[in-house]
Amino acid sequence: MILAPGATIGILGAGQLGRMLAMAAARLGLRSHVFAPETEAPAFDVASAKTIAAYEDETALAAFAEAVDVITYEFENVPTPCVDFLSTFQPVRPGARALSLTQDRLTEKSFLNDLGLRTAPFMAVEDAGGLVRAVGSLGRPSILKTRRFGYDGKGQALIREGSNLSALHRGLGGAPTILEGFINFEREVSVIAARGLDGAFAAFDICENEHERHILAQTRVPAAIAPATAAAAVSIARQILEALDYVGVLAVEMFVTREADGLEGLVINELAPRVHNSGHWTIDGAQTSQFEQHIRAIVGWPLGATTRRGRIEMHNIIGEEAAGWREVLSQPDLSLHLYGKMEVRPGRKMGHVTRILPESGSGSGGGGSGPV
Amino acid sequence: MILAPGATIGILGAGQLGRMLAMAAARLGLRSHVFAPETEAPAFDVASAKTIAAYEDETALAAFAEAVDVITYEFENVPTPCVDFLSTFQPVRPGARALSLTQDRLTEKSFLNDLGLRTAPFMAVEDAGGLVRAVGSLGRPSILKTRRFGYDGKGQALIREGSNLSALHRGLGGAPTILEGFINFEREVSVIAARGLDGAFAAFDICENEHERHILAQTRVPAAIAPATAAAAVSIARQILEALDYVGVLAVEMFVTREADGLEGLVINELAPRVHNSGHWTIDGAQTSQFEQHIRAIVGWPLGATTRRGRIEMHNIIGEEAAGWREVLSQPDLSLHLYGKMEVRPGRKMGHVTRILPESGSGSGGGGSGPV
Repeated sequence: MILAPGATIGILGAGQLGRMLAMAAARLGLRSHVFAPETEAPAFDVASAKTIAAYEDETALAAFAEAVDVITYEFENVPTPCVDFLSTFQPVRPGARALSLTQDRLTEKSFLNDLGLRTAPFMAVEDAGGLVRAVGSLGRPSILKTRRFGYDGKGQALIREGSNLSALHRGLGGAPTILEGFINFEREVSVIAARGLDGAFAAFDICENEHERHILAQTRVPAAIAPATAAAAVSIARQILEALDYVGVLAVEMFVTREADGLEGLVINELAPRVHNSGHWTIDGAQTSQFEQHIRAIVGWPLGATTRRGRIEMHNIIGEEAAGWREVLSQPDLSLHLYGKMEVRPGRKMGHVTRILPESGSGSGGGGSGPV
Repeated sequence: MILAPGATIGILGAGQLGRMLAMAAARLGLRSHVFAPETEAPAFDVASAKTIAAYEDETALAAFAEAVDVITYEFENVPTPCVDFLSTFQPVRPGARALSLTQDRLTEKSFLNDLGLRTAPFMAVEDAGGLVRAVGSLGRPSILKTRRFGYDGKGQALIREGSNLSALHRGLGGAPTILEGFINFEREVSVIAARGLDGAFAAFDICENEHERHILAQTRVPAAIAPATAAAAVSIARQILEALDYVGVLAVEMFVTREADGLEGLVINELAPRVHNSGHWTIDGAQTSQFEQHIRAIVGWPLGATTRRGRIEMHNIIGEEAAGWREVLSQPDLSLHLYGKMEVRPGRKMGHVTRILPESGSGSGGGGSGPV
């Protein structure tokens, strides 16, 4: 089903990703109806309609579904029963399968391994005894993570020499967990890729990401990786999108390793079945933004070009950094994006800043070969 | 008064200019409250609040003023009593003077001539007898225009050899009119310029405009004019902004003539005390869009850089052309903007399309010397 301008996109979730999706939809002559439980949230400011209700409220969900033409989500922890229910009324893109699979680190990693793709070694951990056995197998350091609802480093514990395993396990609250072997990586990169309703595929240039305290601090594009590594990363993303019969934008976070043969390797860290923080640079720095790309995909329109406008740096504005908005505004080469969040909290993503630099003429490091 | 992120911009008028202003405000973490008499209009879709009321409704205007932190307008035919009333509550930027001056072709042209700036020769015309005298003075061809409320060629009549003057005068409905001498021009250009609350000035590169049936059809940037002409055009815009103690974006439409000495001359056609259709290319093609520039100015923030990203072509999507949206979407170098208008009418501006081309290497024609 291909929608026409004037159609309404239903968006589950009202954070900054929903806000930027709604703005991309508006630019294309589409309306947005945002559904979220919060009474005040970034996406409401730019949506033509909103529903404030719980994701379990079937009356509200049904009315929402009747009011829109297609449904998407801005975060992967939407309850799957909500999406299953909505799917009886309207297409939900990307669909329930991508959502349920990526909500659980165990099923996600198993899916990737089944495709022949490389992840960190992992073992499901049911209890403290299981953790002892898993650490015996995967060694130290290793990382214990809740299987579900983790983000920005929440629900994780590093296991070192001397760590008290049962205390660490208790610290994660008794939720189902997974132990992941430690990957000794050179860089963290991500691929922001999209698949259209017609099966078309498009990827933005590979992003290189730096985290601080588990929160994305900075993205640089292109990543300083070999062209063959970049091509392999895009190929992995494409394989995942096709295996899921995916419609929309998906992010694949990967570690770049240095292998025994001296070449770069790629280990998949995690998937995000949605637009992604490391793709925010595309608003200023690409012919089509990741938000427009996602909207194009879910309404059945052709994907846009991912051409890059130069070398890009994107910095997140976290917590108290938001106080520096005037300094950002006074720098002529910076583009400021603020999400309309009224309350500043530590670790809260308040906005981001993009800088576009001329494409470097030297062929250093690869990846900087221009638009894909 | 300098506002902070989270502040609310009041916008009078809910058309596409208001829509794009609201989107620019949202990107900067500002909210928009749109005031207009229409029940459905483009800007409502992306505003965090709306008031649907007449511009004469002082109760509604007072409540609107109390709910916002600064007020602007998206069209120059806002009734001046409305702006005078609102000004008692909140700053209105640009202010009442720029508005009242540009609402009347006679006062606008007199103001420009008083600054020593060149316009078409003109004479006020009170009645059919006055028209005969004015045509005797300014000759044929010449153009009879209503002094107020004209746009996109409405309220105009061309006076040729053999025209029936009294019939033409009657055709404009008895409103006060002005006769303008005919300018034999080579091109139409516009300057989109801004002045900050601190008096800072910035102009985008000169736009070259083509009209079809009096409606802007296409803008190309940079205009194919001599560098000295471009510099003179910017200087004229600056002089106007400073004379008005203006805050915000203003457009100056000019004719480029070929003078007796073989050089280019500039004749001012009209002013628009607002963002302007010929500046829509700045969304995709400039470091700062005209909409962000206007918002920055009216909230007291520093003006942004006007750096251009290449040679630009902007086409308006008028009336039935809107049916071609799929063709536009399938072309990788085009950026589509649709205004969310549900009803297609002949001559109605439904959206626009931007194409960015590489900067030409040759020094042909001047003006293409890169970002200002």
